[in-house]
Amino acid sequence: MSVSASELSDLKHAPALDGVLPVFHERWSARAFASREVSKQDLLRIFEAARWAASSNNEQPWRFIVGLRGSETHEKIFASLMGFNQAWAGKAPVLILGLAKAKFGHNGSPNMFALYDLGASCACLALQASVLGLTSHQMGGVDREKARQLFEIPADCEIGAAIAVGYQDEPETLGNEELIKRELAPRHRKPLDELVFSAWDEPLKLG
Amino acid sequence: MSVSASELSDLKHAPALDGVLPVFHERWSARAFASREVSKQDLLRIFEAARWAASSNNEQPWRFIVGLRGSETHEKIFASLMGFNQAWAGKAPVLILGLAKAKFGHNGSPNMFALYDLGASCACLALQASVLGLTSHQMGGVDREKARQLFEIPADCEIGAAIAVGYQDEPETLGNEELIKRELAPRHRKPLDELVFSAWDEPLKLG
Repeated sequence: MSVSASELSDLKHAPALDGVLPVFHERWSARAFASREVSKQDLLRIFEAARWAASSNNEQPWRFIVGLRGSETHEKIFASLMGFNQAWAGKAPVLILGLAKAKFGHNGSPNMFALYDLGASCACLALQASVLGLTSHQMGGVDREKARQLFEIPADCEIGAAIAVGYQDEPETLGNEELIKRELAPRHRKPLDELVFSAWDEPLKLG
Repeated sequence: MSVSASELSDLKHAPALDGVLPVFHERWSARAFASREVSKQDLLRIFEAARWAASSNNEQPWRFIVGLRGSETHEKIFASLMGFNQAWAGKAPVLILGLAKAKFGHNGSPNMFALYDLGASCACLALQASVLGLTSHQMGGVDREKARQLFEIPADCEIGAAIAVGYQDEPETLGNEELIKRELAPRHRKPLDELVFSAWDEPLKLG
C-alpha cells in the first residue's frame, strides 16, 4: 500500500477548530524523509521564526548547530543520536542540535529557564517548517556525552533536542514495520479537561 | 503622549520576512492590559493550540491553572508573582500558571524534557493568543514555594512560568515611567550568525 504525501496529511492533521491557526493542527513529527534538499532560504526562514520566540529576560539562550546531509556536522549529529533515532533520521537532509546557554549573559547567574526557552524557540522552528511544507521531528534521544565531546560543547551549555528537518516521503520508505505503523497512526492528545484547571470553578486536579 | 493600539503594533512588530508566518514577528510581551474580558471561546482556542505542541514520547507534560480576574485562582496566581510583575500583571483578565509533570506517565521515570515541552506548549499558546488579537506575557518571576503552597502543587510537578493574557491597553495606563518606556521600546533579537552554527562550514562558535 502506497500512501501519498497529501493522503498522509489528511490522516495526520488534527481536526481544525474555528479561529485556531491551522498550523497548530497540521504540524506533526514525521520519520520518513525524502532526499530532496531544503533550500538555504527556507532554513533561514525557520531560524528566523525560532529567533523571535519569547525568553526570560530576553536572554535568547538558544543556539543551533546545523548539519546538511553529506557534511561532517550532519554525520556528527547523527552519531550523537540514540539507536532508535538512527533507524530513520539519517535520511533527513538537515539535522539540527538545539543547545541552551544555561547562564544569563548579563551577570553569569544560572538561567533556570534555558531549556524552557529553547523548547519555545524549537516550537516556533517546527511550526514555521510546517508552514513551508517541510516536516520536522524533535528527538530527545541524544547521547549527551557523545554530542558534548564531538562538538566540544561548553559545560555551561545544556543540550536540548536534535531536530530532523526535510520533506515528507512515503511511509513505506522507512522499511521497518513498526516505524511505518507509527507514521500512519492517527495523532492524539489528552482532552483539555485533563490539562486545564480552575478557569471555571472546576476543582484543581493534577496527576 | 497617547499611543493607540495600532500605532503600538507598528512600533513593536519585528520586520516581516517573506515566507515567514507573520505571527512570529507580531507576537510580543506586553504589560499594559485593558479591562476587556477574554471570551471562553478564545481561551479554548489558545489552549487548543497549546495542546497540540510536540512533546517527548507524546507525554504532554503541560498542565495549566487558569484564573479569571475576580476569582480566587486569579488572586492566588497574582499573589505568587514577584513584586516587579505584580506592578502590572494584576490588571490582566486572565492569569495562567504553567506546570510540567516531571515524571513520565507510563513508567514514572524522570522526564528531563518536561520544562522544554512546557516551553513549547506555552509558545503555541502565546502565538495563538496573538492570532486572536490578544497579547500575552510569560513571567519567570514566580515565587515557586508560594505557588506550590497556595495550589498544593505536587512535588513531582515543576512550576514553569506564569502567563498574563488579555487585550492591549495604552502604554501610559501602566502609570510607571520605566514600564511605559519598556512598553514602547523596539524589540530586538540577536542576529542569526550568533545563534546558528556550522550549516555552511562556518566555524562552530558558542559563547
